Amino acid sequence: MLRTHTCGELNSSHLNQTVTLSGWIQKIRNLGGMTFIDLRDRYGITQLTFNSATLPELHKKIEDYGREWVIQATGTVIERSNKNKNIPTGDIEIVVTDIQVLNSSLLPPFTIEDESDGGDELRMKYRYLDLRRNPVKNNLIFRHRLALEIRNYMNKIGFLEIETPFLIRSTPEGARDFIVPSRVNEGEFYALPQSPQTFKQLLMMSGFDRYFQIVKCFRDEDLRADRQPEFTQIDCEMSFVEQEDVLTTFEGLVRHIFKTFKNIEIPQIERITYEEAMRYYGTDKPDARFDMRFVELNSLTKHREFKIFNEAELVIGIVAKGCASYSRKQLDELVDFVRRPTIGASGLIYILCQPENYKSSVDKFYAQEDLKRIAEHCQAEEGDLILIMAGKTEKVQKQLGELRLEMGTRLGLRSKGVYKPLWVVDFPLLEWDEETQRFYAKHHPFTSPKPEHIPLLTTEPAKVKANAYDLVINGSEIGGGSIRIHDNALQKKMFEVLGFKAEEAEEQFGFLLNAFQYGCPPHGGIAFGFDRLCAVLSDVESIRDFIAFPKNNSARDVMIDAPSPVTQEQLDELKLKVVSNEKNIT
Amino acid sequence: MLRTHTCGELNSSHLNQTVTLSGWIQKIRNLGGMTFIDLRDRYGITQLTFNSATLPELHKKIEDYGREWVIQATGTVIERSNKNKNIPTGDIEIVVTDIQVLNSSLLPPFTIEDESDGGDELRMKYRYLDLRRNPVKNNLIFRHRLALEIRNYMNKIGFLEIETPFLIRSTPEGARDFIVPSRVNEGEFYALPQSPQTFKQLLMMSGFDRYFQIVKCFRDEDLRADRQPEFTQIDCEMSFVEQEDVLTTFEGLVRHIFKTFKNIEIPQIERITYEEAMRYYGTDKPDARFDMRFVELNSLTKHREFKIFNEAELVIGIVAKGCASYSRKQLDELVDFVRRPTIGASGLIYILCQPENYKSSVDKFYAQEDLKRIAEHCQAEEGDLILIMAGKTEKVQKQLGELRLEMGTRLGLRSKGVYKPLWVVDFPLLEWDEETQRFYAKHHPFTSPKPEHIPLLTTEPAKVKANAYDLVINGSEIGGGSIRIHDNALQKKMFEVLGFKAEEAEEQFGFLLNAFQYGCPPHGGIAFGFDRLCAVLSDVESIRDFIAFPKNNSARDVMIDAPSPVTQEQLDELKLKVVSNEKNIT
Repeated sequence: MLRTHTCGELNSSHLNQTVTLSGWIQKIRNLGGMTFIDLRDRYGITQLTFNSATLPELHKKIEDYGREWVIQATGTVIERSNKNKNIPTGDIEIVVTDIQVLNSSLLPPFTIEDESDGGDELRMKYRYLDLRRNPVKNNLIFRHRLALEIRNYMNKIGFLEIETPFLIRSTPEGARDFIVPSRVNEGEFYALPQSPQTFKQLLMMSGFDRYFQIVKCFRDEDLRADRQPEFTQIDCEMSFVEQEDVLTTFEGLVRHIFKTFKNIEIPQIERITYEEAMRYYGTDKPDARFDMRFVELNSLTKHREFKIFNEAELVIGIVAKGCASYSRKQLDELVDFVRRPTIGASGLIYILCQPENYKSSVDKFYAQEDLKRIAEHCQAEEGDLILIMAGKTEKVQKQLGELRLEMGTRLGLRSKGVYKPLWVVDFPLLEWDEETQRFYAKHHPFTSPKPEHIPLLTTEPAKVKANAYDLVINGSEIGGGSIRIHDNALQKKMFEVLGFKAEEAEEQFGFLLNAFQYGCPPHGGIAFGFDRLCAVLSDVESIRDFIAFPKNNSARDVMIDAPSPVTQEQLDELKLKVVSNEKNIT
Repeated sequence: MLRTHTCGELNSSHLNQTVTLSGWIQKIRNLGGMTFIDLRDRYGITQLTFNSATLPELHKKIEDYGREWVIQATGTVIERSNKNKNIPTGDIEIVVTDIQVLNSSLLPPFTIEDESDGGDELRMKYRYLDLRRNPVKNNLIFRHRLALEIRNYMNKIGFLEIETPFLIRSTPEGARDFIVPSRVNEGEFYALPQSPQTFKQLLMMSGFDRYFQIVKCFRDEDLRADRQPEFTQIDCEMSFVEQEDVLTTFEGLVRHIFKTFKNIEIPQIERITYEEAMRYYGTDKPDARFDMRFVELNSLTKHREFKIFNEAELVIGIVAKGCASYSRKQLDELVDFVRRPTIGASGLIYILCQPENYKSSVDKFYAQEDLKRIAEHCQAEEGDLILIMAGKTEKVQKQLGELRLEMGTRLGLRSKGVYKPLWVVDFPLLEWDEETQRFYAKHHPFTSPKPEHIPLLTTEPAKVKANAYDLVINGSEIGGGSIRIHDNALQKKMFEVLGFKAEEAEEQFGFLLNAFQYGCPPHGGIAFGFDRLCAVLSDVESIRDFIAFPKNNSARDVMIDAPSPVTQEQLDELKLKVVSNEKNIT
């Protein structure tokens, strides 16, 4: 070993010991007669001292050294006269007697400090340098600890981690697959898994009644901010269970994680149906750190001459406590907020519940009596602000949902360090797509309808509810799952409702339909987004900060410059031709 | 939960309890008045009993049931009159009072028993049924336990598991990459990693001085028996180390694994140089469970008229203890063995050390005195058999190596349950390829030459030894690694020796060469084949038995029928065209 200790472990118990440290130069301070080097490694920083009077040659030797050089220093641990209480090694320093350069370094393109001066792009290009920074380093250490703790917990409750294949079969249902040409099987392709869904179901058929896996998954989507083409999932499945069993089991995991990493005792996780979530929060992933529920105002608003309300399918409002004193400017800001293209509303109506009267942007349509009734219905009190939006149900719910979050942020109701997990249950099984004029599976085609709703599959598919559930924490969807179909006939019916021809279903999922016939147990499961879980537990917005080598929004790794063209030889071996350029030429 | 207990946990401490079990019907025995069902789940088998006299309706209900049906049974635990000492639940049985069919089953295409009647192909097609069999199930449970134990051990000694990307950049050096077309970046491709090599080196540059990962890797090779296009690696890297540190660290891991899973204390692992391994065993992965070293016989054999020996570059022999009594037939079998196409020798020479004289297949060329000298040189004793082969050095070493293993097997020297790990060290850095007339890296292009051999890189590259090492257990290569180059100039030199033009090296590995300039610490590591490790620890030949869903020798998953053609739409989106068919048409 090129060291006897790390840069994070020496303290006054090591006084007078001769030690060797290796690490990176964080900082050099040359005070003339004395030079100090802060030496850094994964574990911390230790101060090295060089005295020009006692060891002039050594002092001379280090003159050229710079930031991020890698050195090995041997010396004696002494007590520091000027103690630094902020770091664990702050009581001591090393009087260096010998030093070696293990490697020099160019000046890094940005500073390796907790707060870096490097822009996002630069830091991605030099990700190996960005990873030296404490915040990023600590994120990856946290991720490691979290993964290991989850594995040990799952093992303790009888789950087996079983690896499923990465080179699988492409199925056009769902998101877009990444495909992998096969050289040995000419003209054929593997697909990278979007999730191990079918394999974990096959494992249930095999009798592995408690499976999990922390595993990479792949989706070739047009990337939105903070989506990655490859992401990590905690994938879980259980047999001989009903929905309640799955929720209870993973509530245990969630509570364990919060206890272990946050020292927080999560009380029983509240449940809310999909319908309630949409009705009260306008989203299926409500931030439950604050209430501010939607109040429906149709009947209270549709009796006057105000066209916008009268023509709206839905009129809903929220109450912002204590905001009746909002200025014109503040109110305009809110209007601007809902008019952003990403939200797309044309405006909003406010009612300020002031001490003497109600002041509203629709004063000319509604009398004080009307406004009072609305305020009472909303349980708004003196000093509160009511914000009202109107329009088509789904659209206005979404818009007011965004405004609710904005108000939550403005009012400081979305505090870091506060965690409100929530089970959202009773999702609809299907979603109608106007464009293709067909139903799509809301979760995936293997999700079980509620048994009592099975008859509706034929008569009113849109009304069928699923035994499906999401885990939401602070407005982020952390996990989702369902009880699966375990019956061959029902699965076939489901494919039929999704518009598959019998041959297509057979072609794509024949192996699964076949497997159902050999004693498939009732089963269900859940998958958690591991990257997102890391971020949410750390109160960080971006999942990228928890991925060692992430891709950018164009799905590129700018550090290694991937993807990249391949050689003609590689394409020839695969019998492939890139046709875009050809078209441009002809 | 559809059960109160599993089928593996009930015993006489549960007598008179009412329990509910769920599982698969392993066997039904209808003895007229009584019917017995063996109910199976992951945890074991429990006997259910049905009495036609007391509960005739229930007895009637189960008449149709068959093997592999999934049922839920409720009843009372009673003491068994006819105890089965072979299974943990053998003291009890369940008098069933209620039963439900959770799913029926077709008759499986092969029996779900420890020894199945299903052929390899059938069992692969119905892998989900094969996985129900105890031996396969137990292999996956073992794999799970081994992975978790390794993770906990590595964590304990300060290693962090860090996930590296799967969508990386293709590099033509080394084995063939699987490539993944990018839709967003037209005409460009990702590659799936053959190993996280460059990323783990970048992590060392980032200061994560102890990294590991249990991770899938991919190689598009022409499959030999027992190779998989996707396989799992325990990938490890450390900074501020020399070769000795890496060997010591992972010797600790190996010893821990053997102690934990085999209750075997492995003494210090012996080391052997690559040269010695080739000289004494004819292979770089010797089975060290038995000695039977090669003895060089050039000087003792080249003084007579025997052309084969005289013309040979190398004459070597092994001693098979106590085999002087081998019959003509047995000796012919050995000749046939070495003449197999996979071994490719033209024959072998034997000397039987019989009590009265030496009997040899070359009696007419060598006098008793000659044979005696050979026997003495080989330390062969009365009763032993000497087997001698001659030819070009590398070829004959390989051939005698195979014969040595065959003799080891015949003499029972390769016992299951005996483990002899071995470090093979001092590998050559480079390998000359006649076909392409260039050097290839024996391990990979990032392996460090021994510092004292660096000057030879320019003068005699073939003689350069590397700080590279393999872990071999019982003749299987379980792991391999090296100290890496951490110096930019040396890495460039290495690419030069490998015949890269400077631009090519820059194009393909520029990010790495660049990274070397920002303070790269000395580092090294190792990677273990996890599939192989599972197999070797279980004394099983095939790694497939430890993979839940393996591919066959044509890289196909016959269960899901992958790879498969994709839709024209998918190819169009990727701007790709499969050109083989086109050619066939024109």
